[in-house]
Order: sequence, then C-alpha cells, then structure tokens
Amino acid sequence: MSRKRVVAAAQMGPIARSESREQVVRRLLALLAEAKGKGVEFITFPELALTTFFPRWMMEDEAELDSFYEGKLPGPAAAPLFEAAKAAGIGFYLGYAERFVEAGRVRRFNAAITVAPSGEIVGKYRKVHLPGHAEPQPDRAFQHLEKRYFEPGDLGFPVFEALGGRVGMLICNDRRWPEAYRVMGLQDVELVCLGYNTPLDHAGHEPINVLTGFHNALSMQAGAYQNASWVIGTAKCGREEGSLMLADSMIIAPSGEIVAKATTMEDELVTATIDLDMGRPYKETFFDFARHREPASYRLLTERKGAGDMLPPVRGAGID
Amino acid sequence: MSRKRVVAAAQMGPIARSESREQVVRRLLALLAEAKGKGVEFITFPELALTTFFPRWMMEDEAELDSFYEGKLPGPAAAPLFEAAKAAGIGFYLGYAERFVEAGRVRRFNAAITVAPSGEIVGKYRKVHLPGHAEPQPDRAFQHLEKRYFEPGDLGFPVFEALGGRVGMLICNDRRWPEAYRVMGLQDVELVCLGYNTPLDHAGHEPINVLTGFHNALSMQAGAYQNASWVIGTAKCGREEGSLMLADSMIIAPSGEIVAKATTMEDELVTATIDLDMGRPYKETFFDFARHREPASYRLLTERKGAGDMLPPVRGAGID
Repeated sequence: MSRKRVVAAAQMGPIARSESREQVVRRLLALLAEAKGKGVEFITFPELALTTFFPRWMMEDEAELDSFYEGKLPGPAAAPLFEAAKAAGIGFYLGYAERFVEAGRVRRFNAAITVAPSGEIVGKYRKVHLPGHAEPQPDRAFQHLEKRYFEPGDLGFPVFEALGGRVGMLICNDRRWPEAYRVMGLQDVELVCLGYNTPLDHAGHEPINVLTGFHNALSMQAGAYQNASWVIGTAKCGREEGSLMLADSMIIAPSGEIVAKATTMEDELVTATIDLDMGRPYKETFFDFARHREPASYRLLTERKGAGDMLPPVRGAGID
Repeated sequence: MSRKRVVAAAQMGPIARSESREQVVRRLLALLAEAKGKGVEFITFPELALTTFFPRWMMEDEAELDSFYEGKLPGPAAAPLFEAAKAAGIGFYLGYAERFVEAGRVRRFNAAITVAPSGEIVGKYRKVHLPGHAEPQPDRAFQHLEKRYFEPGDLGFPVFEALGGRVGMLICNDRRWPEAYRVMGLQDVELVCLGYNTPLDHAGHEPINVLTGFHNALSMQAGAYQNASWVIGTAKCGREEGSLMLADSMIIAPSGEIVAKATTMEDELVTATIDLDMGRPYKETFFDFARHREPASYRLLTERKGAGDMLPPVRGAGID
C-alpha cells in the first residue's frame, strides 16, 4: 500500500509581542485552510509558534515571563486550531513553551507535540539542545536566553507511529546535532518534524552569521541523508520586534535533496508529496546500521560531553 | 603565532591492475614535486593509494590477494616517497592495505598513516566502517568485498599532534558516519584527512548512484561544520579497470564551505591555505560541546547497533 503523503511546512512571518494568541491562532487557521485546499495531510508549524520569540529579552518579572508559556495544551486560545485540524483530518506538529508545576517546582521546556490527523495527540518532545546563554549579555542587541528560560529536554528523542510511518521531532538548534537525528534513526524514523526561530544577527560573529542559511540547509540535509528520513524544517522568520530571523523553510528527502522551499519571509505554506518508503533503499544498503555501524568505536560519544584531550594511542597501533 | 598551513589533496586517476607499485610511486612523487613547488606542507593521498581498488574482484587465491597488501610500511617500493617527502619537509596521509600475522592469525585492515613533515610517522588509523559485502554477488559487474578482505578497524578514531594542530584520519565510507567525525571532534580535531575510492555504479541503485557526488560533499561538509574542523577529501577516481569512480577531491573549511575542488578525473593536485584557528569561533559558540551536548540523551548511539523498535515513551511524557 502506498505510503505517499501530502505534507506542508507552514512557515510564519514575525509575531509581534503585542499579538494575542487568538490573533496568532487565526493565522495558523488560515494556513490550515490553505493546506486543506491542497490536500495536505500533515503540517509542521514552527518552534514556539504561539508567541513572539521571547528569549530575546531579559525578563525579571516572573508573571511577565509566564505569559509566554502554555499550561494545558490546547488551552482556550489554541483549541480552535486543534478542532479545525481534527475536522479537516489534518495532523500537525506545533512548537510551544511548556510550563507546569511538579512537586512544588516550576518546570519550563521548549516543547513540541505531534497530533495525528484523527486529532489524537500522539507524541511530545522537549528540546534537548538549548542554545544561547543563561545570563544576560549587556553588549547584545538581542539576548538568546534559552538556557535561562528552559530546562534541557528530559524525554530523549522519541519516535511515534503516525501517518502510517514513524515520526520524530526536533526543535531549532537540535538540527545542528547529528546525535539527535541518529537516536531517532536507530528507531527507524521516517519523518522528522522540526520548527525553528533562528536570528541572523548573533552579535560579533559576522563570518558565521552570513552562513546561517547554508548551515541550516546543510545540517538538515545531512541529518535526512544519514538517517534516510524525510525532514520538514519550518521557520518563524522575518524581522520580529527588530530581530531578523532566517526563513528558508524546506522539505528534505531521505536522499538529502531539498524538494520544496519557502521563497518569502512571511506566512507561507510549502507543500510536497512525500513517499515514506523512499528511505528504504538507503536503509537497506549504505545505511543498514546493523551491518555497518560499529558502536564499540563510538564510546566517546556518551563518555565525554565536551571536547578534551586526545585519547592515548590504542595498544598495537604502532607503525611496524 | 599563525597556524596557517598550505595543504593539498593529491587526487589520483585510475591505477591499472598491471601497474607496479614502483610505477604508482613515481606518480605520487610527481604530485609531491608539484606540491613542493607550490609551498605545500601537507598532502592527503587517497585510500589504498599504492594499488588498484582490488575489492572489486573476488579472489580465491590467497597469494594473489596478499599481493595487494603491505607488510612493513614503507617497504622498498614506497621508500622513495617517504624519503622525498622528508627531504622536502612535506607531511602526508597515505592509504594502504595492511597485512600482518599476529599469534598465528592473518590480520588485514584498510589503513592509513599520517607522516609529519619531519618524516616521523605520527599516527595510524584502520578503517572502521567497511562498506560492501563479504560474499560475492554474482549479479554485480564489480564486487565490493571490503567486508571480506578487511577486518573493521580496531584503533578507534585517533587524533594526533601534527602541523602544530590536531589531525585525525578517516577512510572512504567512514565519511558518511557522523559518529566518526564526532569522536574526533570530542578530541578537538582541527584537520581530518580522508582518502576514498567510490564507485559510481552500485548495481541496482541508480537513484542513489546519480547522487554520489552530492552525498560525498554533503557528508564531508556536515562533518567539517558540525565539528568545526578542516576536512581534506582525496579521491582515486576515473575509469579504473572498467569501474568508474568519483573524483571531486576537495578541501572543506570548518564553516562547511568547499574552498578548493578538483576539476579532472586524473592525477591532480588541489591546494589551499588553511588556518587551523578558523574553527575556533565555532568551537566557542554553536559547537562548544561542553555547554551544549547532552550525552544522557545519546545513550542509544552506543547501546544499539542497528535500527530497531521505537523506545517506549518516557514516564511523564504524557500530554496533560
């Protein structure tokens, strides 16, 4: 039976700080309506899709900070999206800021959920690779305080059954880390959904900044190819509260090829018909992990966190 | 003090089966002489650079097979290369087939060594990711019997001091595996040398074959960028004994950018001036592993070899 699916990256232009969740959800509903007209079965929305990218500001006031997080999802503001998607039979990935209290402790994560076309919430993910810093840096025009406002995700890199295949999730900076894709690849992932907010103006790093679009594509293309999985990368982009963010939402095949790509920095639906079986020839040859991987040689990946000393040469490695 | 170095990928066109090691070494010496004229300090030669790519043939005769391997390196045939390089003050990476007897058992590896400009052999590597198959496949025009003719490397992914920096080695198919680059990245590698023989005609996989050049670049560019290391990839290429092999030797910056590339399928020297400090801004920001990696979430990388079942959801991952 064919496993071809029509999917979309639902790119969003900027969200102003003054924009209410109700206003944002109306934009998401418009993208959903366009998707329905195009026969789309699954949409990837961006990271933190319900509000402006708030980690750009230092906030001392706890209530102000909390205003950017969701408690229960869907709450009243997002409920119309969940209802309309279910009515349309369209599944989706949605990034949001998650806040809850556990044993008297406030927990905050940069999270995403996957909702099946049936309306069932099939999976949750919490961003593992938090970029930026925990303390404000006075010389920056915009902060990047994800390490202050979120804990690193504690759910691993889960893969779920959806769309008749195996679906995983990443969030933004995760896409630069091959470890993240591979943990899902080892669960035979077939589609990775990934939303991002990627400022183009990291202070003091111009030679890196100018390559942001290249690095975005390179990381996702390599992750797709090396795990023979589809990747849908969706941006929130454009000049948001003065901070310019990368667009370049794209759908990438298990071959690493970009098959569809946004051309604006606004709300834009990018669609493609993807065959979940396309990765199979790769998984049976070059990336038949069971035949080719050598985990005994990979121990440093989990034994060491940071870069450090060179390992001493293995016994018998002399040149004789 | 500047750590700029002039380096080269010394691409080789085909080596006929009838070509003697002495003839091959004369070609290597010509490339070395050209490199000397261009102020090159370090050369990366290809994988299995002293003979034709013999894993394309099934050989039952042990003596015939052994004729493609080196015992001591340099042996008499390769000695002039080592001597000329030392005299020129040029270091190099050289791929070769390694054979020795240990405790009565014949050991065979697809190996490479790094020789410093001083002439000192500073490191050895044995290919970890062996592609292909162990049993001949009668429907193939050319076999790919690396899994028959070599053991997987048992030296890990070592990194060595050379050129005033940290140098690591990979061989051919290793370049598709992010684990390989990362184990070296965790040792703060600054330059990865990599030789390859990459047939363009894997029987029955046309949709993959046509992307061979793209996948070659994508894999090396991602490995370079994600570990903020230079990569020198050097092909043996062209139509060798009827089998067409990829050229596209290239030098890749820690930004992932290709800074020099071969344009022929013949013996060709590709040079670039590389700054070993260029990776530093990446290693101090996006790829400051100590700040950003989360090894507790990577356990599957070493716990599992092949792709398998989805992990059960982590406790508390419910959507509430």
